[in-house]
Amino acid sequence: MSYFRDNIEAMAAYVPGEQPASRERVIKLNTNENPYPPSPAVARRLREFSFDALRVYPDPRAGVFVQAVSEVLGIPRDRIQAGNGSDNLLVMIARAAAGPGRRVAYPGPTFPFYETQALVEAAEIVEVPFEADYAFPLQDLLAARAAVTFVANPNSPTGTTASLEQLETLARGLQGVGLLVIDEAYVDFAEATAIELPARYENVVVLRTLSKGYSLAGLRLGFAVAQPGVLRELWKTKEIYNVSSLTEQLGAAAVRDQDSMRANAAKIRQSRAKLAADLQALGWSVWPSQANFILARPPRGNAREVYEALKAGGILVRYFQHTDLADKLRITIGTDEQNAELLKRI
Amino acid sequence: MSYFRDNIEAMAAYVPGEQPASRERVIKLNTNENPYPPSPAVARRLREFSFDALRVYPDPRAGVFVQAVSEVLGIPRDRIQAGNGSDNLLVMIARAAAGPGRRVAYPGPTFPFYETQALVEAAEIVEVPFEADYAFPLQDLLAARAAVTFVANPNSPTGTTASLEQLETLARGLQGVGLLVIDEAYVDFAEATAIELPARYENVVVLRTLSKGYSLAGLRLGFAVAQPGVLRELWKTKEIYNVSSLTEQLGAAAVRDQDSMRANAAKIRQSRAKLAADLQALGWSVWPSQANFILARPPRGNAREVYEALKAGGILVRYFQHTDLADKLRITIGTDEQNAELLKRI
Repeated sequence: MSYFRDNIEAMAAYVPGEQPASRERVIKLNTNENPYPPSPAVARRLREFSFDALRVYPDPRAGVFVQAVSEVLGIPRDRIQAGNGSDNLLVMIARAAAGPGRRVAYPGPTFPFYETQALVEAAEIVEVPFEADYAFPLQDLLAARAAVTFVANPNSPTGTTASLEQLETLARGLQGVGLLVIDEAYVDFAEATAIELPARYENVVVLRTLSKGYSLAGLRLGFAVAQPGVLRELWKTKEIYNVSSLTEQLGAAAVRDQDSMRANAAKIRQSRAKLAADLQALGWSVWPSQANFILARPPRGNAREVYEALKAGGILVRYFQHTDLADKLRITIGTDEQNAELLKRI
Repeated sequence: MSYFRDNIEAMAAYVPGEQPASRERVIKLNTNENPYPPSPAVARRLREFSFDALRVYPDPRAGVFVQAVSEVLGIPRDRIQAGNGSDNLLVMIARAAAGPGRRVAYPGPTFPFYETQALVEAAEIVEVPFEADYAFPLQDLLAARAAVTFVANPNSPTGTTASLEQLETLARGLQGVGLLVIDEAYVDFAEATAIELPARYENVVVLRTLSKGYSLAGLRLGFAVAQPGVLRELWKTKEIYNVSSLTEQLGAAAVRDQDSMRANAAKIRQSRAKLAADLQALGWSVWPSQANFILARPPRGNAREVYEALKAGGILVRYFQHTDLADKLRITIGTDEQNAELLKRI
């Protein structure tokens, strides 16, 4: 017998976007980070934090953070579960609900970590291709009848969205069939949210993260919204203490400062419109995005070349080898100055 | 079909020790926290940390922390994997190597989270009873021939240890059979470590945590030491970014201050000897402990009553319902003042 499960040995690891060593001067438009700093309230809470508090275990429920989310979003505390980043919540969901004989479905191309989780759990995988121009493949996702359906909304790397009506139809069709996990990592830059759906559908889990809108990718904090019966099962699969007491406090401070997050998100949406228009003026194809990045195709489709040239010049964007994406780049929205620099170099 | 796997619905969740609300004044001797504060170097690093760094994703390998561990312990970096607490590493191991048809074994009673992980992975569980006075059941663990064998050393809640010779015999016997995970959460209070074993046995994983010796239970940071081929498989099951950039920095500062950790551990070992002697003078049975707690039996075996009375008086210790433990208490070593207060109340 091998030391590891066959499916683990057979699979490839998830490959995160490049993280340049901090001393390098690069314009980093490759991992959808927010170009603006986190809320000043986070800095204050960091200064005030008594390091002696680290001596004892944190609250396994991250209650201070959950309370803040509850008040700000108007959702009862027993419908909120904190995670060490939303990737930690995705792991919990996969462990609880995927597995051999328990199918995992998602539209593709999307966040590759859904596939990673399905592979770790040895689940059958159904990647449902998006329709033309990345329109949401509602009927095919319904037909897949999966135990777990992951929908990133807005989707990465396309920036496109499913409508609330489509998501509700999917939730209804999957009742009694499987979980619908709506990953709202990019929702702070979008026009609509499905955060109300879990109250009406016992099979819906909505995921949020503080990595994007709140400029806290380095902190590792996200949360799930679902009915208490769902969270009770996910709870069984989590680490005992998955959120540090420092993270819990900083996250609460960040969430309570909605104004700061909204102001930054508004700037990014403005810059997104400008960058899209500027690229189109240069002959690029740009897909409509509701996220903090855009998917764009250079006029000659030579995405890899453009990626390499930008990288050589100190600008990182994201290139994917996925068949459908090999002629496109995913470009994170930077500050207007960073975006102007990008335009100069292409 | 249910929304969750059958084994998940059937299992009970892990129950962590009581965490009193911070405003309550209690003497907390129930979750094996360190009574002394973390290294002053951690406080300094916390003050210096630029909160703007939280804007970007952390290093997925937690390189700054891994580098510190590598230098301090003299272990190559490619043999060290950081985790969001060692419970995160236990999850990674369970996902990679346990599962249906892949047996999990451990001596019992022990840290109940091993059983939790086996239940989540629907593995067959072999709990091998300790021998008389919690002597290490080497032959029965060998005979179990498990895909994953967990050994907490020192063990909790007993405080007892396996010898290095026993661990090496177990490692050798399990070569080609399964992983031997030696959980050294309490090693900083013990006389010996198995940290050298992974260099010689490709099936050994040693786990360490900063929660106990380094007084950083609230931070969530641990690490695994194993051969690169083992870590490569565990890596596939982890969150993309499992350690925050703040945690990475604070953990590196803590590990580099060995003097501070050692001084606190020495005080705790002294207090442990004194508390054990004082309890024995009062007629309690005390098992020899190499951890920062002792397992002790009140003269009349009325552990639950003593636990309740102490709790009513503001002192928390740990009571377990496990058959073998129902007449004993696990008491974390506090400061000499806290231990004196405990002795007054029993």
